[in-house]
Amino acid sequence: MEKGFILWFTGLSGAGKTTISKIVAEKLEKRGCKVEILDGDIVRENLSKGLTFSKEDRDINIRRIGFVAHLLSRNGVVGITAAISPYKAVRNEIREMYENFIEVYINAPLEVCEQRDVKGLYAKARAGEIQNFTGIDDPYEPPDNPEITCCTDKENLDESVAHVISSLEKLGYLT
Amino acid sequence: MEKGFILWFTGLSGAGKTTISKIVAEKLEKRGCKVEILDGDIVRENLSKGLTFSKEDRDINIRRIGFVAHLLSRNGVVGITAAISPYKAVRNEIREMYENFIEVYINAPLEVCEQRDVKGLYAKARAGEIQNFTGIDDPYEPPDNPEITCCTDKENLDESVAHVISSLEKLGYLT
Repeated sequence: MEKGFILWFTGLSGAGKTTISKIVAEKLEKRGCKVEILDGDIVRENLSKGLTFSKEDRDINIRRIGFVAHLLSRNGVVGITAAISPYKAVRNEIREMYENFIEVYINAPLEVCEQRDVKGLYAKARAGEIQNFTGIDDPYEPPDNPEITCCTDKENLDESVAHVISSLEKLGYLT
Repeated sequence: MEKGFILWFTGLSGAGKTTISKIVAEKLEKRGCKVEILDGDIVRENLSKGLTFSKEDRDINIRRIGFVAHLLSRNGVVGITAAISPYKAVRNEIREMYENFIEVYINAPLEVCEQRDVKGLYAKARAGEIQNFTGIDDPYEPPDNPEITCCTDKENLDESVAHVISSLEKLGYLT
């Protein structure tokens, strides 16, 4: 049986979580892993409709993602999560609760993410059309000791993906 | 890769869903299947805390269970669900939405389930301490064409389990 694990991407909106996680998923599948991406938006639609972006509701959403990622990983699947997951305490709660948890910090300065503004959300947040937007009027708490860090303002997509894969090898999750 | 599927138990509280599903899970694991039981209570705790037992909230809960069972089954895991899931429409919605859906109707008359009253819930419902209790003041809509039916008032546990397993063989999900 393949070894499952939880690959937990965290970072600001626009930092590159979804982009990197998709390519990493493809690479893992090519190596014979079973992979499931639990993207923030898809999870909110299917597991957390009705939840707001308050701290309390965000934490509930993150716990649900953690629970599902755990169900997958303990059955030999790589559960990739790609939600902002801005709060350190609940990420660490997931880390304590479940085995084979690997935190991937997608690190890009707020200015860079805001300039990219892939989904146009920063502009809306600045205009006051969205509240509780991470980085603008809601905090992002970076991890203290993430297993993997990608600095997407300094490295390109290929480099970030290669770094994730080689880190998984070093950590013993890939052979 | 093993073939995953969704084994969807439905029936009244006390009909025997949890008991049968646990033994079926053991039998499937002995045959080399990966199995995950999504029990009603565990799912409510981890995915649906705060939801009530209104029809709307029950349907949301069932859709979440279906989504997770689907994530598991498409990765080669047998996703066993054991929630009452009283409403036909949402069960059929899940059936339409996801592949390899097998409905197992655990059929026992209300009188039998109420007499067993394993969790003491029927007594509370009769006393008015619980509202929206399926079979008492909330409907149970049996499936029209379940793939498998177990009549737990007429067969014992071993017989029910054997019937589920042999039905899975006939349906081509087990070799």
